[in-house]
Amino acid sequence: MLECVDNPERGRVYTIDFETSEFTALYAVTGQPIFAAISISYVPGEVCVEQMSLKRYLGSFRDEKVFYEGVVNRIVDDFVRACDPVTLDVTGDFTVRGGIETRVSVMYDREDDV
Amino acid sequence: MLECVDNPERGRVYTIDFETSEFTALYAVTGQPIFAAISISYVPGEVCVEQMSLKRYLGSFRDEKVFYEGVVNRIVDDFVRACDPVTLDVTGDFTVRGGIETRVSVMYDREDDV
Amino acid sequence: MLECVDNPERGRVYTIDFETSEFTALYAVTGQPIFAAISISYVPGEVCVEQMSLKRYLGSFRDEKVFYEGVVNRIVDDFVRACDPVTLDVTGDFTVRGGIETRVSVMYDREDDV
Amino acid sequence: MLECVDNPERGRVYTIDFETSEFTALYAVTGQPIFAAISISYVPGEVCVEQMSLKRYLGSFRDEKVFYEGVVNRIVDDFVRACDPVTLDVTGDFTVRGGIETRVSVMYDREDDV
Amino acid sequence: MLECVDNPERGRVYTIDFETSEFTALYAVTGQPIFAAISISYVPGEVCVEQMSLKRYLGSFRDEKVFYEGVVNRIVDDFVRACDPVTLDVTGDFTVRGGIETRVSVMYDREDDV
Amino acid sequence: MLECVDNPERGRVYTIDFETSEFTALYAVTGQPIFAAISISYVPGEVCVEQMSLKRYLGSFRDEKVFYEGVVNRIVDDFVRACDPVTLDVTGDFTVRGGIETRVSVMYDREDDV
Amino acid sequence: MLECVDNPERGRVYTIDFETSEFTALYAVTGQPIFAAISISYVPGEVCVEQMSLKRYLGSFRDEKVFYEGVVNRIVDDFVRACDPVTLDVTGDFTVRGGIETRVSVMYDREDDV
Amino acid sequence: MLECVDNPERGRVYTIDFETSEFTALYAVTGQPIFAAISISYVPGEVCVEQMSLKRYLGSFRDEKVFYEGVVNRIVDDFVRACDPVTLDVTGDFTVRGGIETRVSVMYDREDDV
Amino acid sequence: MLECVDNPERGRVYTIDFETSEFTALYAVTGQPIFAAISISYVPGEVCVEQMSLKRYLGSFRDEKVFYEGVVNRIVDDFVRACDPVTLDVTGDFTVRGGIETRVSVMYDREDDV
Amino acid sequence: MLECVDNPERGRVYTIDFETSEFTALYAVTGQPIFAAISISYVPGEVCVEQMSLKRYLGSFRDEKVFYEGVVNRIVDDFVRACDPVTLDVTGDFTVRGGIETRVSVMYDREDDV
Repeated sequence: MLECVDNPERGRVYTIDFETSEFTALYAVTGQPIFAAISISYVPGEVCVEQMSLKRYLGSFRDEKVFYEGVVNRIVDDFVRACDPVTLDVTGDFTVRGGIETRVSVMYDREDDV
Repeated sequence: MLECVDNPERGRVYTIDFETSEFTALYAVTGQPIFAAISISYVPGEVCVEQMSLKRYLGSFRDEKVFYEGVVNRIVDDFVRACDPVTLDVTGDFTVRGGIETRVSVMYDREDDV
Repeated sequence: MLECVDNPERGRVYTIDFETSEFTALYAVTGQPIFAAISISYVPGEVCVEQMSLKRYLGSFRDEKVFYEGVVNRIVDDFVRACDPVTLDVTGDFTVRGGIETRVSVMYDREDDV
Repeated sequence: MLECVDNPERGRVYTIDFETSEFTALYAVTGQPIFAAISISYVPGEVCVEQMSLKRYLGSFRDEKVFYEGVVNRIVDDFVRACDPVTLDVTGDFTVRGGIETRVSVMYDREDDV
Repeated sequence: MLECVDNPERGRVYTIDFETSEFTALYAVTGQPIFAAISISYVPGEVCVEQMSLKRYLGSFRDEKVFYEGVVNRIVDDFVRACDPVTLDVTGDFTVRGGIETRVSVMYDREDDV
Repeated sequence: MLECVDNPERGRVYTIDFETSEFTALYAVTGQPIFAAISISYVPGEVCVEQMSLKRYLGSFRDEKVFYEGVVNRIVDDFVRACDPVTLDVTGDFTVRGGIETRVSVMYDREDDV
Repeated sequence: MLECVDNPERGRVYTIDFETSEFTALYAVTGQPIFAAISISYVPGEVCVEQMSLKRYLGSFRDEKVFYEGVVNRIVDDFVRACDPVTLDVTGDFTVRGGIETRVSVMYDREDDV
Repeated sequence: MLECVDNPERGRVYTIDFETSEFTALYAVTGQPIFAAISISYVPGEVCVEQMSLKRYLGSFRDEKVFYEGVVNRIVDDFVRACDPVTLDVTGDFTVRGGIETRVSVMYDREDDV
Repeated sequence: MLECVDNPERGRVYTIDFETSEFTALYAVTGQPIFAAISISYVPGEVCVEQMSLKRYLGSFRDEKVFYEGVVNRIVDDFVRACDPVTLDVTGDFTVRGGIETRVSVMYDREDDV
Repeated sequence: MLECVDNPERGRVYTIDFETSEFTALYAVTGQPIFAAISISYVPGEVCVEQMSLKRYLGSFRDEKVFYEGVVNRIVDDFVRACDPVTLDVTGDFTVRGGIETRVSVMYDREDDV
């Protein structure tokens, strides 16, 4: 669902960050709503992710049943498949449950991914 | 008491952080209540810690008599025994006593632990 | 359990505030730990509450089963019985449960209490 | 859907506040997700709102199509019908859309409501 | 340019706030860009301002030459003409110029406006 | 030195605030530099203070020897003489000297000033 | 020990605030050091308190044995005796002891003091 | 449009940072206004950028149609062409659109630029 | 005066931090009180510093005449002599004097100390 | 004008930081006042800078005409000449002009300075 556009500066190493506090899904075990802030930071390769498609993509989790670790790793996988970035960091900051706040962070580097 | 579930992304190095400000125990010398914020950050190995069991585990200190240095090191030991993480950082931020705030931080790396 | 000492300035209307973030009890329904910040603000009458006895008094809820509304009202009742203040405000800020933060505030005035 | 329990201190005027940043619904016109922080503050009458039913009630808007003004007023109406409070304030802080943050606040007083 | 929709709760006194930090215009004397945060708070009468038209309205100042006092008063006049609110507060927080930050605030009440 | 321009909305009661953290003068006793943040808030009468002349006016204290109480009262007097406001509040927040921060606040109302 | 200077604006009602976080004394019961932030806010009468003498005055508590309630009330008494202010507010914010932060606030009005 | 002046300390490696929250342009696709905070940090070479020309340069984007990635890269290119810095970092923090905040960061090093 | 207890985890490299904002001494030149926040961070060797003795130790400077640079270095020397830590950082943040805030930081490493 | 005193711990590498928000000078081109926060951080060599002379030194710029880049570099040069530090960092944070905040930072190392 993630769409891409040409990277306007392919020869240059630079960083694009997206941050949203409007992420919600359902918890895989209980079906209860979960809420998170999602941060995505990447160095683009040949293409950049188009921002409106990113919004729709993140919104598509609204009715999905997910685990905390699973959903952050899946965003990484989908993002890599869609735009093959040079590097990519994704962090999900999940709101307090049972008095505990949980953060899951994945750092991806294209060179390590063989 | 810490229970584990399979790591959904065993081949990937990524980080899971837990933070709670709802930790209390009793001080070993005086038996008085102590309060702390506990932060746990780890790179999972084969398994991940199940979050509800973590809540129960941290709650089990409520009636235990502990020293500041001792309790943080014991969380490290219990966590390592339960889920054998690649790396693990545990920090306890203990509330002011006698005008002094105390923080104890342990960084564990599986490679150093032979 | 609350002990009192003579008010050193009986003829003067002034305010004494106590704030602690180290309050814990058990939830009446589930027996699970609850955590709160408690604020007590009062205009003393003939006597003032002795601070060490206040600490012990608040600590005595540690193993009690309480409701949010109940515990704040009970602190008001115990405080009034112990030191008969001119006015008294008690607020309990209970930590997030189910994504909801709850605050219970009681304002007491000796003139209204006939 | 809001359930009530007996007010443990019917004779006393005191305040109960609920705050959550985990509110989401769909926008009536576009069907797009909207996010808000909801604050509810009330002086209870004969009964108090039971907190778990409040969580379920607020969660029930997840798939509803609403307007900003409409949803805050509807929470007021449902809350009044369920527990007939002495006073009630409800505020919805809706996240930025088109560069504009919107807040809708309703103050209700039982005495004015004849 | 401000468009209106029916107030869904005409019989009730409640407040709608809009806040944006994305306001820009040109200074009347020098033609230089000026930037401000604009806050609009009103109790609606028969109609509410439609939010997308508000965004377009505030954007229409982009190429206008204005004075600080003038532009805030003009937003009040336009808003009153468009939706005849019961009360209306408009504040413009203009960014630092010459080391001085300027704020202009207008409070309007329909009852005083005869 | 303060210059004025016509108030564009003479019939309306509204407020203009100026804030600067760039105020400096010399202390009357020692000749040492003093620094302050100055806030000026007024309801204009027939005229408004022109902002560039305000900047020059506040800058004119740079080499003046002043007392804290004196300088805030003098700004009030000069401002009243220049633009005859309906109300005027001036506050000077002077930086720490000898471990003590000092604030001097004057509230002026034209009706009281006969 | 508090010295005074003439009020430069006797006919005008205005406010002078002093704030310091550098207050220390000894606790009357244990002899242990206590630390507080002290705020003093007053409307001057015929005279103003000279700031260097205020610094020396507050420093004179360094080796005194005091109670929290007592020391704030004593500052009020000494201040009133020294400069006979129209109104006077004194607040002491004492640092955490036993997990509890204590604030004592006294509001004095010359008209009530007969 | 960027003008330069001689670097007063050519032999020394030091850093000059500019930050402004007053950047606006038009979005290339929709023509809608976009707002950003722009940070520019560089180690000067032979010349420094003259600050007033920087202000005019950043203001020149007001009526330009740009993409987020494009505008930050273009500022880098124009800055390099104008003053040939040793290193240069440019970051654009674009305000929330569709619930997502976007940041584009480019780090340039003269040694890598062959 | 600093007393020690056995390190409960001698084989492990971990960190203990102490922070207090309740430090006061006298200035060596003028005899005036000085105030500071003191931070002590160390990796323990065979023994840990006992916290109550640390409180008494820091309190013992109350009537000592010290220089800023001298007192921080002396805490390092006393701490090293008392518990021979693997590493030790001590920072003193001294409150504003003459408009200047001063911080002195010493980093000690046992390996460098031969 | 900067005076020095003997470093009490010559054999030890440690850091002394000074921060002041009370720096003002005149702009070289326009003669207008400029304001800045100045941070100085150094590892002392044989001598330390005496703090009262630092205050007088920084105050001596009050009537000087300077450029932003020039004044920070000149403080570095004067400081090096006065006390020959091992390392020295000086940063000037100049207040907003034309909507732009400017920071100039110089890092000096005695070993590089031949």
